[in-house]
Amino acid sequence: MLSPIPARHDHTPAYTAALGLPQGESVTLRVWTGLPVTGVSLKVVRVGEIEYLPAEAVTLPNWSGEGQWFEARLPIHAGRVRYAWELRLPDDHLNLTAAGLTHGRRGFRSWFQYLAGHIAPEWAWQSVFYQIFPDRFRDGDSSNNVREGEYQYQGRPIETRPWGAPIDQAGDVHAHYGGDLRGIQDALPYLTDLGVNALWLTPIFVSPSNHRYDISDYRHVDPHLGGDAAFDDLIGAVHAANLKIVLDGVFNHVGNEHALFQAALAGAERERAMFTWRDEQEKTQHELPYHAFFDVPTLPKLDYLSGDAEQEFLAGEQSVVRQWLRRGADGWRLDVAHMIGKGGTDEGNLDLHRSLKRAARAEKRDAYVFGERFFDPEAALDGSGEDGAMNYHGFGLPLMQWFSGHSYTFTPSRLGGEELCALLADTYHALPPQVALSMFNLLDSHDIPRALFRLGGDTRKLRAALTLLLAYAGVPCLYYGTEIGLSQAQEGAMPWCRESMPWNEAEWDTELRAEVQQLIKVRRNALALQQGHLRFVLQTPDAVGFVREYTAGSGHAERVLALASRTPEAIMLTLPQGDWTDLLSGEVLRGQVSLDLSTGRLLGQGQAD
Amino acid sequence: MLSPIPARHDHTPAYTAALGLPQGESVTLRVWTGLPVTGVSLKVVRVGEIEYLPAEAVTLPNWSGEGQWFEARLPIHAGRVRYAWELRLPDDHLNLTAAGLTHGRRGFRSWFQYLAGHIAPEWAWQSVFYQIFPDRFRDGDSSNNVREGEYQYQGRPIETRPWGAPIDQAGDVHAHYGGDLRGIQDALPYLTDLGVNALWLTPIFVSPSNHRYDISDYRHVDPHLGGDAAFDDLIGAVHAANLKIVLDGVFNHVGNEHALFQAALAGAERERAMFTWRDEQEKTQHELPYHAFFDVPTLPKLDYLSGDAEQEFLAGEQSVVRQWLRRGADGWRLDVAHMIGKGGTDEGNLDLHRSLKRAARAEKRDAYVFGERFFDPEAALDGSGEDGAMNYHGFGLPLMQWFSGHSYTFTPSRLGGEELCALLADTYHALPPQVALSMFNLLDSHDIPRALFRLGGDTRKLRAALTLLLAYAGVPCLYYGTEIGLSQAQEGAMPWCRESMPWNEAEWDTELRAEVQQLIKVRRNALALQQGHLRFVLQTPDAVGFVREYTAGSGHAERVLALASRTPEAIMLTLPQGDWTDLLSGEVLRGQVSLDLSTGRLLGQGQAD
Repeated sequence: MLSPIPARHDHTPAYTAALGLPQGESVTLRVWTGLPVTGVSLKVVRVGEIEYLPAEAVTLPNWSGEGQWFEARLPIHAGRVRYAWELRLPDDHLNLTAAGLTHGRRGFRSWFQYLAGHIAPEWAWQSVFYQIFPDRFRDGDSSNNVREGEYQYQGRPIETRPWGAPIDQAGDVHAHYGGDLRGIQDALPYLTDLGVNALWLTPIFVSPSNHRYDISDYRHVDPHLGGDAAFDDLIGAVHAANLKIVLDGVFNHVGNEHALFQAALAGAERERAMFTWRDEQEKTQHELPYHAFFDVPTLPKLDYLSGDAEQEFLAGEQSVVRQWLRRGADGWRLDVAHMIGKGGTDEGNLDLHRSLKRAARAEKRDAYVFGERFFDPEAALDGSGEDGAMNYHGFGLPLMQWFSGHSYTFTPSRLGGEELCALLADTYHALPPQVALSMFNLLDSHDIPRALFRLGGDTRKLRAALTLLLAYAGVPCLYYGTEIGLSQAQEGAMPWCRESMPWNEAEWDTELRAEVQQLIKVRRNALALQQGHLRFVLQTPDAVGFVREYTAGSGHAERVLALASRTPEAIMLTLPQGDWTDLLSGEVLRGQVSLDLSTGRLLGQGQAD
Repeated sequence: MLSPIPARHDHTPAYTAALGLPQGESVTLRVWTGLPVTGVSLKVVRVGEIEYLPAEAVTLPNWSGEGQWFEARLPIHAGRVRYAWELRLPDDHLNLTAAGLTHGRRGFRSWFQYLAGHIAPEWAWQSVFYQIFPDRFRDGDSSNNVREGEYQYQGRPIETRPWGAPIDQAGDVHAHYGGDLRGIQDALPYLTDLGVNALWLTPIFVSPSNHRYDISDYRHVDPHLGGDAAFDDLIGAVHAANLKIVLDGVFNHVGNEHALFQAALAGAERERAMFTWRDEQEKTQHELPYHAFFDVPTLPKLDYLSGDAEQEFLAGEQSVVRQWLRRGADGWRLDVAHMIGKGGTDEGNLDLHRSLKRAARAEKRDAYVFGERFFDPEAALDGSGEDGAMNYHGFGLPLMQWFSGHSYTFTPSRLGGEELCALLADTYHALPPQVALSMFNLLDSHDIPRALFRLGGDTRKLRAALTLLLAYAGVPCLYYGTEIGLSQAQEGAMPWCRESMPWNEAEWDTELRAEVQQLIKVRRNALALQQGHLRFVLQTPDAVGFVREYTAGSGHAERVLALASRTPEAIMLTLPQGDWTDLLSGEVLRGQVSLDLSTGRLLGQGQAD
């Protein structure tokens, strides 16, 4: 494990003097190597050609390790510059790219990338998020609760359930438990005690369903959640507690009760253009006369061929995106970000996200904008659009598939640790560094089964999975209740994964909560975990491990080694050179160690303090 | 080697009923598997989501092998549709993509792709190309030869050399040997005897240098090559001999003597807009006041911000592209295709190539258009632009690096066969099938050192490399003289790799020529080599092998196994099941065989005849 690597370069200060310098300038890059090189060049892709630039041997003043450092200037000639290193040896030459050292010239996808003038929401890198599904987290004001049968929804009366009542199929999208923004505000001491410092709220705007993804009015907070006043109170309290808050933006479709869709149905021209209407021929094959999210009639799809739609929701000075950032939100999670587009399709998707991000950033310089992209998001993540994406594809889904032995739909899977690591590494290495650090990592959410349920209730496995989540490259997010062992009653995703949060501590797994608390603390204190490079170092069928490494300008590296197993049997590992501190127990380890990995381990080396 | 694979799908008829059906239609796809599956689904990427479609077990009427076939209908809902198969087992499930069988869900780059309404130049798949550098191939008419000092070029008089004179540095781009189109016409019997059936000519238009990449007039053939009349004669003779001919299009830059550039220099507004002029600030950093190919003053870069430039060269009814197709050319090789763009950069590159291809196809339905892309061409090859690209990146350069132990710049390399195969397979699997079959494969050219020279004159290694070239997926091309052992006098690329072709048979390696002849014959007779799927089956440091497989609608597969080694030592291999015919010797082989791979082997199975 962790055999010494012969050459290193990444985005941290020893190797990349500064991130995000403007186009037209140049940046100093360095490479370290322990190989007996006869020469080093920096290769840069420019107007489709590979340009060779000289790299010179340099000495780092306070650095006394082995090997040599070389330095070159990278001209930042485009919005995204691809580069690689060439190391020449007496009888060989090697290419160093994000894919590692190879003899052959890899495709550009694997080359390092430098983003010109890129501003990353760095606060997100220092954050541990907590996802809240407002109706189910906490009821702070019962006076605003939905009343049984208060209105009709999808042809039958809306329903209510008492807090703690088991989830039932009939209540799927109808049943309201009464959670609200006041409840979240009341829970802030709980959340700060847990250690999280950012919240993602699923939708809070006026909407008839319990999930509120069918929005009738984006300009107001649902009165059943406390309305706009409760929002202002919550924002004030959240910020006073030094937390950030991200809202859920549903910009692919609206609820059918939305005034724009009602006007469109009534024939208003401008509003009709905001939706995609089927022609006579298409109507013979489709029940609905308009495009909708998975053909659900209550979720008509917005058509961004209409510049008015783009202005109203995304880009305008008064757009929904800008309005709520102005009122205090710190960012947006974008629902089905991959679907947004023109003419009933996802055409123009990246351009729309660029437009959205420009507007968000014009309103708030460090707004964090990330999309729900349930599938491979690579094409959307060149740095010009979303800051990152929900990392279902490149982290959460495969990791949980490996831990649980089945997919999120409970299809059995014999995915092994070697393939898992290869898949994760491939996804990571293709992203620009600031994007990789802004990916939104999660084990579970309101859309997929709860992690603990998938793991058969085995909290040891859950802790192991949480260890990797908190150590991985990107922004970790916990789904409400995971920390106290909240699970679900039966197989499936929605509605079962949306149980109400128990507030009776007797129902909590307090040991698990204490461990999660500790993991969060380690994460929030470790620069290597927040901003470090990622490298896989252990990949066996049942055990995996990776190193996060942050190398300061001096050449001093801070490392955290994250290890986890899916079997209870102990395995023997040889630790890399030097002393390693178990960041959870404080124990100092060295050399050969027998580790019971069933709970996951975080071992640190070179920490600045 | 060649362990049985448990599931198969590719672009050939058993698996894909038809290629290139129009958008809006659907196509029948099949998958074969020997696994005990409980169910199979076709997964399709649509509006950013993965849609599951049912696949049903089917029986192929004339097929009696093991395993099961499943069939599904793929809706062709976009210009390029991504799909994969999911195979469910009692305790597992697998994804089948172009990257093979995996437990995890691979990124979309690895998924199969279907191109809607795509027309491929299928004649190219049946072709073996021969590259001719006109000044050096054959002098058919000495009366049109350049005369010593006939004109000035780059500040000194143009030069001549007698046929067969050694290449010298002073003559680099100045020295003319006198080759011409009449010479090529005279050599047609030689070429048809060799077996090639398509020619690529480096530029033939009016130009002062010997390479003619600095074109003064695209509308006429250089009088020193025989002028327009010789072109018409040549086209007639080439087509009469059932050969095709592809010209070299230099659309990134023109020669500085071109009338448009001269008019631009003189201040004409329309013409000035066709080039990129540096502003005052840029001029302080650059000697040239305009953008040029590698800042060579004689090669001013075209600026396609000018719609006039696009019309003149690429897209117009009277464009250079259309004019020469109309006059009889069968396609275009596009010089530095990766550089073409707007504002002195490669911006808009893909759109310009789409425009070029539309124009070419409007003129000639099966015109073959492929770019010189010396570096990774993947981003340009989605099927909408060029048909394919010169396969330096994904075939010729790494293959020769492995065979020779150095790069094309003679930098030593210890590239091994495992990495070689991984690199080739990765490049191949990411391309749409029609593009992969249209890639232009080569070992050497007028731009890189001759293969025989790089191999230290070892013709056994050259034959091994040629064996893989003729068997690989894509269109093979021989550089003139390779077949008779033409090499070069010293290390380097240009001008050394451009020796004049010897026509005295006493100077030929006739044994090599006979073997090349045989390889070409095998290629031209094997559907599997022309259109088959590619799969690597042998990858050791010193020996590599791949299978090309074409499976007819009946399920009957025609296979060719290509093997080569870079060492003279014999190695033992176990052949896959069944009889294999050595397609060069006719010998029938079976089971364990000891093979001396130093010359390469082609073994066939299931050939239709």
